[in-house]
Amino acid sequence: MSCIVQYVPDHPFPIQNLPYGVFVKGGDAPHIGVAIGDFILDLNVLAREQGVFPPQVAAALQEPTMNTFMGLDYDTWKQTRDTITSALTAGGLLAGNEALKGAALVRQRDVKMVLPANIGDYTDCYASREHATNLGKMFRPNAAPLLENWLHIPVGYHGRSSSIVVSGTPLTRPNGQKRPNPEAPPTFGPSAAVDFELEMAAYVGTGNELGEPIPVAEAHKKIFGFSTFNDWSARDIQKWEYVPLGPFLGKNFGSTISPWIVTTFALEPFRVAGPAQSEPEPLPYLRDSTPGNYDINLTVTINTKEGDSMVVSNSNYKYMYWSVFQQLAHHSVNGCNMRPGDVIASGTISGPTEGSYGSMIELAWQGTKPVKFPSGAERKMIQDGDTVVMNAECVGNGYRIGFGDCSGMVLPAKELKF
Amino acid sequence: MSCIVQYVPDHPFPIQNLPYGVFVKGGDAPHIGVAIGDFILDLNVLAREQGVFPPQVAAALQEPTMNTFMGLDYDTWKQTRDTITSALTAGGLLAGNEALKGAALVRQRDVKMVLPANIGDYTDCYASREHATNLGKMFRPNAAPLLENWLHIPVGYHGRSSSIVVSGTPLTRPNGQKRPNPEAPPTFGPSAAVDFELEMAAYVGTGNELGEPIPVAEAHKKIFGFSTFNDWSARDIQKWEYVPLGPFLGKNFGSTISPWIVTTFALEPFRVAGPAQSEPEPLPYLRDSTPGNYDINLTVTINTKEGDSMVVSNSNYKYMYWSVFQQLAHHSVNGCNMRPGDVIASGTISGPTEGSYGSMIELAWQGTKPVKFPSGAERKMIQDGDTVVMNAECVGNGYRIGFGDCSGMVLPAKELKF
Repeated sequence: MSCIVQYVPDHPFPIQNLPYGVFVKGGDAPHIGVAIGDFILDLNVLAREQGVFPPQVAAALQEPTMNTFMGLDYDTWKQTRDTITSALTAGGLLAGNEALKGAALVRQRDVKMVLPANIGDYTDCYASREHATNLGKMFRPNAAPLLENWLHIPVGYHGRSSSIVVSGTPLTRPNGQKRPNPEAPPTFGPSAAVDFELEMAAYVGTGNELGEPIPVAEAHKKIFGFSTFNDWSARDIQKWEYVPLGPFLGKNFGSTISPWIVTTFALEPFRVAGPAQSEPEPLPYLRDSTPGNYDINLTVTINTKEGDSMVVSNSNYKYMYWSVFQQLAHHSVNGCNMRPGDVIASGTISGPTEGSYGSMIELAWQGTKPVKFPSGAERKMIQDGDTVVMNAECVGNGYRIGFGDCSGMVLPAKELKF
Repeated sequence: MSCIVQYVPDHPFPIQNLPYGVFVKGGDAPHIGVAIGDFILDLNVLAREQGVFPPQVAAALQEPTMNTFMGLDYDTWKQTRDTITSALTAGGLLAGNEALKGAALVRQRDVKMVLPANIGDYTDCYASREHATNLGKMFRPNAAPLLENWLHIPVGYHGRSSSIVVSGTPLTRPNGQKRPNPEAPPTFGPSAAVDFELEMAAYVGTGNELGEPIPVAEAHKKIFGFSTFNDWSARDIQKWEYVPLGPFLGKNFGSTISPWIVTTFALEPFRVAGPAQSEPEPLPYLRDSTPGNYDINLTVTINTKEGDSMVVSNSNYKYMYWSVFQQLAHHSVNGCNMRPGDVIASGTISGPTEGSYGSMIELAWQGTKPVKFPSGAERKMIQDGDTVVMNAECVGNGYRIGFGDCSGMVLPAKELKF
């Protein structure tokens, strides 16, 4: 496949990838595009060309968010990808049309990426066995680390969609109520324990009507694609607030999502089976005969305020115990309706070794093993001025599938006077 | 104040009320209106008349949802209410204009009410001391009924906005995973414990930017108005799933909201102080010198499949320990951003006596005291074919402020084959 756009061999956005995103150029309205090398193919421009896409697709691709396009069906997504691939290939639509090529190819450095969809509802899961086990060991040292429902249920909870921001947006350290000393009354002030959580976010494509479950076999055609996701967490606020109704202000001050959505088509060569689920075997509605995981290498880099830049975690999406397809089947089995653009995040993805843990609370083991940086700086949690960058990639045969940065800096807390 | 629309003296929608809603007539697009007696004043029609409203308000009132209008400020809401009141009063805009009156007044019985807003995020609280105490007594009989954070924090969690439906929409009994026998593995099937929860839903009007908290004193001008709300709950699913991350599928199969939004202006004469908050005193960011509750009588009626119709609960919104203004201040104190049309529900509103409990699990005390109906039928939980109707009203000096029905029937579960 010879692409009309030149890029280096290990580029994160080769023609095998074609992730979708929404960008703004100058004062223009947001356009939908796909990344190709250092460029973006502006699908709004392509969609206005007569006959390139069927009318329904052309209309959806001219909207300022991906929601309508995501709401079309799997086969339409596939046909659209084929059309785009062909347009970018030697001998295709753009090859012989310099005017169209000039209008449709935009340099990534000249635009600002925005959220690709209106995220109606956002669900966060808790699907890495290693992460759940690590937290169990820390929080309940004298009991079995996994709670008794964990191996039966893809545990999840509702998060806040309003505070999901696109990569590059700084976040303010939250103020909140906490109880550092259990013998003394609670206190109020800036969180002293801002953490990251390394996650993948799945966008729901076509949804379901209220009352109509999505069987796990159909779930494979309902997920549109994936981004990397940082579920920022204020551990001290979370610890005091979370019983009995779960995380709230310890999470909803912000979540960072990468701007590009890598489709299931690009990820198909990297499908792998997840961990064995035999003890116990899941209930029938959760049994999936198809490999439900993806072999996606994940890294977390911290760029400190002292000037260090170090990879602090190497993990992989394949470690997920419950797959996103099982999560979607579980999430809808009671009839809960999913809408195009809804997000299901994986929960922290921790691997089996210390260097593969997906959060600071695990990497620094509740502060007992501080993470050491080259300058001598140490971290038990994220400090003001630190930037956390998550990256994901699949290594293919002669190419890579990248996801683009999921990056955010923590700013000092607001001074509040009461 | 002489209204040009005639209504009986104790009508729920007198000129002192003027609740907002969104209605559909025939094949028309949704219009915003206010209820007046048995009619709706079509604000879309009024907004198209030159000079009635300022341009920004006129544009907002022609949208198909309330979100944009809600996003305007408190003073604008107040001016708009004054204009509407004046238009409906003898000597006002409509009195002398039969053509406009004919176009602008629509009979409620001729239209279908729809959700008044796109609800971006929905938060459910847990703010009735009596409810939290009752559940504590049932679930933790050998411990203090209130958890140690409850008197310090307006506890809340994120709910699912996609499955909020307008009054009158039937709901399907959810299937799900549960563990009726703790000694045996979990099972799958229809919930055997569908319950209601009597709540009030507050719509956020003007919101806040991410990172910028709303102080409690400002919260009073940020809430647009209130509806009644049934937070349907499948207790058996909830019980098995909720540790450690809170309610999920036990709640998100559906919530019912009444279509009319009663504004804070209509409720102003009914402002009352909440329960004393002195042991312990809340942290300064939660202290509110203004009365934060409303004296709103609440009832729950069950219309059974056997043909019974009986009020099973008489409660009042004034019982709330944490006010909605404290909830909003707490919710945003970490910088979490609220958007116009977001909903904050109160949590189950239980009063101090058995007949004032806001859920079946409390009324039937975990099945030990079944609710008895005139026909001899009994209920420990809601059965297929039962309809739960919630109503709210304030009794003023010579008038009543009604909220309209919040009603939903439970349909049998889908038969799922695995």
